[in-house]
Amino acid sequence: VGRPRTTGPAKSGSTTSEEILAAAATLFCSQGYGGTSTHAIAQLAGISQGNVHHHFASKDAILHELLLRTVRPSVEFATQLIHDTTDAAERLWALCAYDAQLLMASPSNTGTLYLLPETAGERFAQYHAERNRLRSDYRTLVSDSGRVTNDHIDAVTGMVYALVESVILRRRNEPDLHGPQVVIQTGDAALLLIGTERHELPVIRTRAQQRWGITPGL
Amino acid sequence: VGRPRTTGPAKSGSTTSEEILAAAATLFCSQGYGGTSTHAIAQLAGISQGNVHHHFASKDAILHELLLRTVRPSVEFATQLIHDTTDAAERLWALCAYDAQLLMASPSNTGTLYLLPETAGERFAQYHAERNRLRSDYRTLVSDSGRVTNDHIDAVTGMVYALVESVILRRRNEPDLHGPQVVIQTGDAALLLIGTERHELPVIRTRAQQRWGITPGL
Repeated sequence: VGRPRTTGPAKSGSTTSEEILAAAATLFCSQGYGGTSTHAIAQLAGISQGNVHHHFASKDAILHELLLRTVRPSVEFATQLIHDTTDAAERLWALCAYDAQLLMASPSNTGTLYLLPETAGERFAQYHAERNRLRSDYRTLVSDSGRVTNDHIDAVTGMVYALVESVILRRRNEPDLHGPQVVIQTGDAALLLIGTERHELPVIRTRAQQRWGITPGL
Repeated sequence: VGRPRTTGPAKSGSTTSEEILAAAATLFCSQGYGGTSTHAIAQLAGISQGNVHHHFASKDAILHELLLRTVRPSVEFATQLIHDTTDAAERLWALCAYDAQLLMASPSNTGTLYLLPETAGERFAQYHAERNRLRSDYRTLVSDSGRVTNDHIDAVTGMVYALVESVILRRRNEPDLHGPQVVIQTGDAALLLIGTERHELPVIRTRAQQRWGITPGL
């Protein structure tokens, strides 16, 4: 069972599909999704509308691929983390920092597009499945940290997950946002929310950064 | 200098303008802003399109009023808090909890609409001015708490403000979100982010709730 035809570029990684995605991200986030036509995307990418449709079945397929890129790398990293046996707080720090880094890097802050009413439907099922999987991995790490009582695990996970996602709000609110600082700050904040004492942070942070190679800004 | 004509209902508080706002919130958040016409709003509200235009100059004016309602009450509360002289951490707890409560209560989670590219422009200047004012009051409280060093005040304020706003993300992510729990959780989390030790929370929270009358769920 491969990836459904309509959710990704026909020629993944080809220059043309990358140019289509970049143009679409710019337009969706400046003109709105409803206000953007595949014609306008083709124009901005400097190709024909036929060529857009050669790479993507529809405008929804372009949006779907942009959305998947805001979550897929974090899902893959989370899968690695979940199967590791080192300190769960350290792994949670790594996941939050990695995920924040991904959201900081998305072109035109495409993460905001997930709040569109248009993305709620079944057509974006794969995206929703990936997000659920990521969220469930966050929950496992919160739980495995042993710092949260059972009856609070869902509430704390909800807050940690939203804290990481709030990077998309900060990119909108703070024009001079400093990426590497946000990444560190997000990892640290998540640990405070699960009950880590402030004085424990430097050791956990340093270990997480070394073990998982998260060195923002270097 | 009164409120500009186009940003609020002509007859504030009238049943008809409230019905228009409720119908618009439902449609904007389910069909998208671009996909909603004043005709559709009139239909859902059960009135004529002419009557919509009697109350609001344009679709933008309706959106503007909905956006202002997600921020104006918090701005008013913040103004009270800023002029008080009790413990700043207590006042910050109160502002975060109040603001979270407001975002939890907005019909159809209208807070999400501020992420639309459409709202970035000058037409929504009053809304942006109110948000800047609120943000600046958050900054004052973070600073007055005496718990954050000068060179971290902006970064910590950015994170606290985004944490509160992330209530709109949680409403989207967590269908069974429990309002009163989120309100308390948000106040507590903000204090952890400014450096409050966990063992200090119960006293500050109780005082803040009593002094400012924030008793979610009661």
